Amino acid sequence: MLQECLENVRKMTPLIHCITNYVTTGDVANMLLACGAKPIMADEPKEAAEITACAAGLAMNLGTPGERTIAAMHIAGRRANELGHPVLFDPVGVGASVFRQESAKELLSALHFDVIRGNVTEIKMIYKLYHALFDRHIGEEKAFGTDAVIGKASGVDALASDAVTEGKLSDAVAFVKTAASELHSIVAVTGAVDLISDGMLCYVIRGGREEMSRVTGTGCQLSGLMTAFASANPGNMLTAALAASCTMKTAGEIAWRNLTEEEGNASYRNRMIDAVYRMDGDTLERMADYEVR
Amino acid sequence: MLQECLENVRKMTPLIHCITNYVTTGDVANMLLACGAKPIMADEPKEAAEITACAAGLAMNLGTPGERTIAAMHIAGRRANELGHPVLFDPVGVGASVFRQESAKELLSALHFDVIRGNVTEIKMIYKLYHALFDRHIGEEKAFGTDAVIGKASGVDALASDAVTEGKLSDAVAFVKTAASELHSIVAVTGAVDLISDGMLCYVIRGGREEMSRVTGTGCQLSGLMTAFASANPGNMLTAALAASCTMKTAGEIAWRNLTEEEGNASYRNRMIDAVYRMDGDTLERMADYEVR
Amino acid sequence: MLQECLENVRKMTPLIHCITNYVTTGDVANMLLACGAKPIMADEPKEAAEITACAAGLAMNLGTPGERTIAAMHIAGRRANELGHPVLFDPVGVGASVFRQESAKELLSALHFDVIRGNVTEIKMIYKLYHALFDRHIGEEKAFGTDAVIGKASGVDALASDAVTEGKLSDAVAFVKTAASELHSIVAVTGAVDLISDGMLCYVIRGGREEMSRVTGTGCQLSGLMTAFASANPGNMLTAALAASCTMKTAGEIAWRNLTEEEGNASYRNRMIDAVYRMDGDTLERMADYEVR
Repeated sequence: MLQECLENVRKMTPLIHCITNYVTTGDVANMLLACGAKPIMADEPKEAAEITACAAGLAMNLGTPGERTIAAMHIAGRRANELGHPVLFDPVGVGASVFRQESAKELLSALHFDVIRGNVTEIKMIYKLYHALFDRHIGEEKAFGTDAVIGKASGVDALASDAVTEGKLSDAVAFVKTAASELHSIVAVTGAVDLISDGMLCYVIRGGREEMSRVTGTGCQLSGLMTAFASANPGNMLTAALAASCTMKTAGEIAWRNLTEEEGNASYRNRMIDAVYRMDGDTLERMADYEVR
Repeated sequence: MLQECLENVRKMTPLIHCITNYVTTGDVANMLLACGAKPIMADEPKEAAEITACAAGLAMNLGTPGERTIAAMHIAGRRANELGHPVLFDPVGVGASVFRQESAKELLSALHFDVIRGNVTEIKMIYKLYHALFDRHIGEEKAFGTDAVIGKASGVDALASDAVTEGKLSDAVAFVKTAASELHSIVAVTGAVDLISDGMLCYVIRGGREEMSRVTGTGCQLSGLMTAFASANPGNMLTAALAASCTMKTAGEIAWRNLTEEEGNASYRNRMIDAVYRMDGDTLERMADYEVR
Repeated sequence: MLQECLENVRKMTPLIHCITNYVTTGDVANMLLACGAKPIMADEPKEAAEITACAAGLAMNLGTPGERTIAAMHIAGRRANELGHPVLFDPVGVGASVFRQESAKELLSALHFDVIRGNVTEIKMIYKLYHALFDRHIGEEKAFGTDAVIGKASGVDALASDAVTEGKLSDAVAFVKTAASELHSIVAVTGAVDLISDGMLCYVIRGGREEMSRVTGTGCQLSGLMTAFASANPGNMLTAALAASCTMKTAGEIAWRNLTEEEGNASYRNRMIDAVYRMDGDTLERMADYEVR
C-alpha cells in the first residue's frame, strides 16, 4: 500500500507548486526531487494562478509570511480548488502573531484544503481559528486543551505541554478526528508520533528520531512530500499522507544510522533527503510503524 | 584553453552581482566561491545600480520573479551594459506564465545580454518572444519546433519533446546558431548535451550525469559559473562559457564517482560544489568532452 | 567560562528572531539549532513586534536589504529594546550602497544595539556613519584609516587594505575599543583575527581557518551564534560574544580536520555546523585561543 503510493510518485513525477518560506526552500525542492516529484516555487500574485494550473498539486506554507505571498496563496488556492488539484496547508508558527492568525483564518474561509499538516500546537490553533470563523463554542471534551494555546505559542515549535505522548494518545486521536471532520480536510498532526485522520480513521505513526527536530525545515519537507504523494494518489489521499509520513520517519531513521560520529544536524539534513532519494518500496513497507485507530 | 579560463577566474576573483531566485541562492553563492569568484546577492531597485557598479559581472535569473526583482534587473542591467560588464540572463521557467514572458520580453528589449543560458524549452521561448518584439514571422526551418512550445511549458524543466538528442543534433545546432546570431548574444542551451554558440561557431559539450537534474539549482549554478568565467575572460566569452559548461559537467562526473552508496541528491549537490572547489586545470582539460560545429 | 556560556545556551534554548538575508537563511537556522538555540525568521512589519516579543533575542542582517525588511527591523528593534532583549546588528556590505548606508544610519539613530558584528571594513563604515549622524569630526588617531573606506568597499568582503594583521593589531584594538565605547555597543570585528570589545577590554581571538571565507554565510552564522549566546548569558554579553567567536573558530578547525580529500566548501559548510552541534565545553575551552588587551 505504502509502496504503491511511492511508486505512483515516481511514475507520475508530479509538479508541485510551492508557496513557501525562504528559509527552507532549497531543502523542500531537493526533498521533492528526492521522492520523484518536481518543484516549482512561485509566489508572485500575477503568475500564481497560471503556475498552479500547470502543476499537479499545491503546497502553502505560512513560514516567513508577507502580504504578497498571502495574496498569491489566495489566487493559487482558488485556481487549484477549481482544477481539483490537491492543496496542502502548513500553518507554520500560526500562533506566533495576529498576522499569521488572521491570514490563516482568511485562507480557511476562502479555500478548501485537502490536507492540513502542522505540529500539535499549530493544528490546535487552526481548529480554534476555524471555530472562531463561525463564532462557535468549542466543547470542552473536543478541545484537547485548545484554550491553553492562544498567546502562549512561541516560535515555530510545538509547546511541550501539547506534546502527543502515549498517555495522551486517545485524547489526541479523538481531537485529530474531530478536527479533520469539522475542517473537512485530512489533518496531519506530526511530531514524535504522527496522527493522520480523515475524520473517520486515524493513523498513528511511530518511528523517526527526536533529532529530526534539530534540522530546520523537516516539517516543510514533510509537507512537500505529502503534497507530492497526494498529487500522485488523488484517489486515496489518506493513504498517501500516511505513506509520506512513513517515508519521512523511515528516512530519519536510515539517515541517523548513516551518520558518522563527527556529523551533526547539517549532515543529518542531507542524509534524510538522500535516504528518500534511495528509498525503495520494500524498505518503506518493512520499516513503517503504524496502526489504525 | 579551458585551463586558462579557470585560472583567470581564480586570479581575478570577480565579484558577481546576482539577482536570482530564493530557492537556490545559497548554492549559487557557494558555487561562485568554489570556482574562485565572489557573490553578492542584491535585488533592491534602490541599490541595484551601485551594487552592480562595484561588481565585475551580473547574473539575472527569472526563477521566483516579482515586480521588485524585475525592476532591479532593469536598473542593474542598464548600468552593467553602460559599464561593459558581462550580463547573463537565465530565463528560468519563462514558458510557465505570461508574467515571466512579458518580463523577459521587456528585458530583451531594454538590455543587451552577453550570454543567455537556459534549457532548450526556455531558449526556444526566448527566441519566440524576441521575434514577437519585432512582430516578425519565424521561418519554419529556423524555428526548431518553437511553435510547439507556447502554452505547453510546464514548470522549470525542458519538455521531453524538446530534448536535444543525437538524432536531432544538427537541427538543434542550427537553431542555437540562429538564435545567437539574431539575439546578438552567446546562447547556451544546456541539458544532457550543452550547445553554446556565438552565432558563428557552436560548441557541443557532452558528459555530466543525468542525475544532475535531480538536484535543484544546477542550472542556476551553471549560470553563476558562466557569469564568473565571462567576467574573468571578457575578451573571449564564448570560450569562457564553454569552460564553465565543461567545469560543471566534469564536476557532475567527479561528484557522482565520489558518492557513497547511501548518498543521494542532497549529498550530490554538495559534492558537485566541492568538485568545482577542487577542480584543477589539468583535470578539466582531460575530462572535458566537446567538439565544434 | 566559555563552557558555561555554551551550556547556558543548551539549557535555555533561546528562541532567536532573525531578520536576515535570503542567501544564508537555512544555514543560519541550522547553526542556531546546532548550538542549542531555536530560530524564527520573520520580516513582515505587521508581525515583527509580536514575533520578537516571544523570542529571547533579535539578530538583524543587512544582506539583501529591502524597504520592507528595513521597516521590520525598526519595529522589531524598538520592541526588543523595550523588552530588554539582546539585539545584534550585522551590517553586511554596508559600504556597498547608499541605500545600505542610509538604512544603517537610521537604524543606528533609532535603536540600541547590544552587539554590532561585521568585518573590519563594515565596522569602520558603521563608525563613520555613526559620527556623521552627529556631524562630528573623527580624530585622525581614532579613525584607523576610516577615511579610506567610503566609496571603495566592494561587495561583502573586507578590503585587503583593512585586514587586521599582527602588525596592525595595536591600532586595530584601539579602534575597536573606541568604536565600542562611542557606539555604546559590544563591537565585534571578525576575520582572520577576531576583536571583541565593550569599550574597556578587547578580546583578541585567533584560530579558525582562512578557508572559512570560501563558505557563504559564515559571518551571518556567527552573528546568529552571538545573538544566541548573548540571549542565554544576558548578564555577561562580552563573554558571550567571546564564547560565540571561539565556538565558530574551533568549529572551523575541527570541520577542516574532518574534511576528506575530495571535499570542498559545500561539505565544509556542513561540517562546521556539525562541529557546533557536537561541540562540548571541554573541547571549546581547550581549543579556544584568545587573549585580553
